[in-house]
Order: sequence, then C-alpha cells, then structure tokens
Amino acid sequence: MSLLDKLTDALRVLPGVGPKSAQRMAYHLLQRNREGATQLADTLQRALRDITHCERCNTFSETDICDRCADSGRDASQLCIVEMPADLGVMESTQAYRGLYYVLMGRISPLDGIGPRELKFDRLLARATDGVVQEVILATNFTNEGEATAHYVGEMLRSRGLQVSRIARGVPVGGELEHTDLGTVAQAFVERRGV
Amino acid sequence: MSLLDKLTDALRVLPGVGPKSAQRMAYHLLQRNREGATQLADTLQRALRDITHCERCNTFSETDICDRCADSGRDASQLCIVEMPADLGVMESTQAYRGLYYVLMGRISPLDGIGPRELKFDRLLARATDGVVQEVILATNFTNEGEATAHYVGEMLRSRGLQVSRIARGVPVGGELEHTDLGTVAQAFVERRGV
Repeated sequence: MSLLDKLTDALRVLPGVGPKSAQRMAYHLLQRNREGATQLADTLQRALRDITHCERCNTFSETDICDRCADSGRDASQLCIVEMPADLGVMESTQAYRGLYYVLMGRISPLDGIGPRELKFDRLLARATDGVVQEVILATNFTNEGEATAHYVGEMLRSRGLQVSRIARGVPVGGELEHTDLGTVAQAFVERRGV
Repeated sequence: MSLLDKLTDALRVLPGVGPKSAQRMAYHLLQRNREGATQLADTLQRALRDITHCERCNTFSETDICDRCADSGRDASQLCIVEMPADLGVMESTQAYRGLYYVLMGRISPLDGIGPRELKFDRLLARATDGVVQEVILATNFTNEGEATAHYVGEMLRSRGLQVSRIARGVPVGGELEHTDLGTVAQAFVERRGV
C-alpha cells in the first residue's frame, strides 16, 4: 500500500469520515496546507503524550489535578456529574454553579457495551464519598441514555447517604446540554429537584 | 490555551471540519481510539516527509519518478492531463488508456486566486514538449473551471505544434470524473475530439 493510501486509511479513524472524505483530506493536507498538517501531527502527538484525566474530576487535563479541582475558591460540598467535558463547559458558561464536577466521559449505553464498569463508577463512588461532598447534582443529558445513567448513579449515591438532585427538565426532552441555550441550562440548574 | 483546545484548533485544518466536529474528533481520538490517533499522527508525519511530486507527471509519489512514469510498457507518445490524482485513478480503472499522465493538482480558479502560475504550467509545458509526446488528451472535469483549464492548456500546447484532444462530453455536463461510472468515462475517452 502506498504511503498516500496509508494516510487516507489513517484519517478514517476520525468519526464521520468515510473513504471519499479521507482522500479529500489527504490531498488537502499534502497539497494545500502542509504547515497546518505538520501542526496537526505535532499537536496530536503532544496531546496523546501529555493529556491525561484529572485524578479528581476525570476530565481531560495536562496535570494530575486540573485547575478547577485545585481551585480552593469553589464549593467542594457540591459535585455536579456530567457526561462529557463539553457539558462541563456549558455548565460553567451559565455561571450558575460554583461547586466541583465529575465527568463520566460517556454514558451508560448497553447497545455500545458501555456500562458501569466501562465508565469506572467505582472511581466516581470514591470521589463522591470523600466526606466533603454533601450534594450530588446529576447533569447528564435528557436522552434515554443520559436518563438511565442519572438513575443508576443517583441510586448508587443515595444509598451511600448523599443528597442527590437532578437538574430540572427545563432542558428539552431528548435534547443535549451542548446544544441548549445558556438561560435554559441555568434555569434547569436552579430548579433541580431531589431524586 | 489548553493542549486540548490546541488539538481542536489543529483539527480544523481538515476540509469541512468546523469547531463542533473538531471537538468531537479530539474527544474521540483521546478517549476512544488512542491507537488509531497515534497511527494517524505517525502516518501524517511520514507522509509529509516522504511524499513528494513525481518529477514527470506531478502526482503524489514517494520516489522522484513514480512507478507509472518509469514503466517502459506504456505509450509515451500520449499524455493525458487530469486535475487530481483521483481522476488519474478513474482513468486507469477504465483500462481504456495506456499512455502517460500529467496531474495538474488543481484547476484554474480565479475566485480562489489559482491561475497558470499557481498550477506551474511552465512545468507542464516542458513535460509536454519533450519531443516524445505527440498527442495531449485533456481530461479535466466538465465543470466551468475544468473547461476553462482545458481551454487554456489546449491553446498553450496546440501553439507548440502538439496534437490536442479533449475527452468526449459523455461525462455529464457539470459533473466530475471521480463520481462518474467507468463505462461513461471509457466512452468519453474513445470519443475524444481534436480541439
């Protein structure tokens, strides 16, 4: 196989990229934007080497403990659980929340073979039962999978004596945090209810 | 800027990838397919280092002269001019042609600032007037830009005494070679006409 074909193949690891797109990308990188391509290869290698998961909140981080978890100005008694780092970003943008986070890096999805084990719920349990956290706020998406995840995590943590709440269903049913306007997300946070 | 943001930015050099797709790709590479991501970074670096342009036909090649141009079994009196390597691949697949190629690596496109100088037509001229080439077959796309390119190249080479033909307009008007069935492309080659 030629190196060009290998590059086209390698590009297909990107989600949503089929054979035609991959070929177009390979041409573009080699022909029109070699500088950008070099930058991409370098940054990807650095990211793979240096980006790990925060030991406390599990989000992507270049340090063992991310800046947010290390910030003593935040309310450590509240722990907000989200699916992905992008969801954390949305919560932060609302400026409605000053507690800490735990990022699941996914959601329960039996069809994809992703369950409590794959999502390392034992790690979440250890984090939430550190003795400082008083309230856990479930901010997973309002999709079927997000709801199932919230239900599972809620049951698990309530049985350990934690106060558990779910952000209000102000977020459109079936919708995702990332695509919701900030006002709605903020309102949903304010109207969180015990579960 | 965090390394994750840098990776997301770097991914936007890919054609058709906006901020949301880039973020999804970054998560996917770091979270779900680190092996594929490593492979992509390595292959991209190797490709940038080792893939150059064939000195004779201008297509992507890992050697100074590509295998096709070095093949003494091909008819060196015919030179088929195509826009991109993918178009060359289509011509080859028809098995209707046994001559050599010249790949423009683009087409005249005033709106994108791409003209004869950017496409290095002096190089094409030197290649076509090597004394061996007798007939030049224009197989650029039947888009407006491809037609303009064929017209320009045709005039340039005919004025040097070369026989110039254009593949027949059997290819749908406005269509592109890469998306045309092989039979139509083969027929268009057979019915090429002097210009």
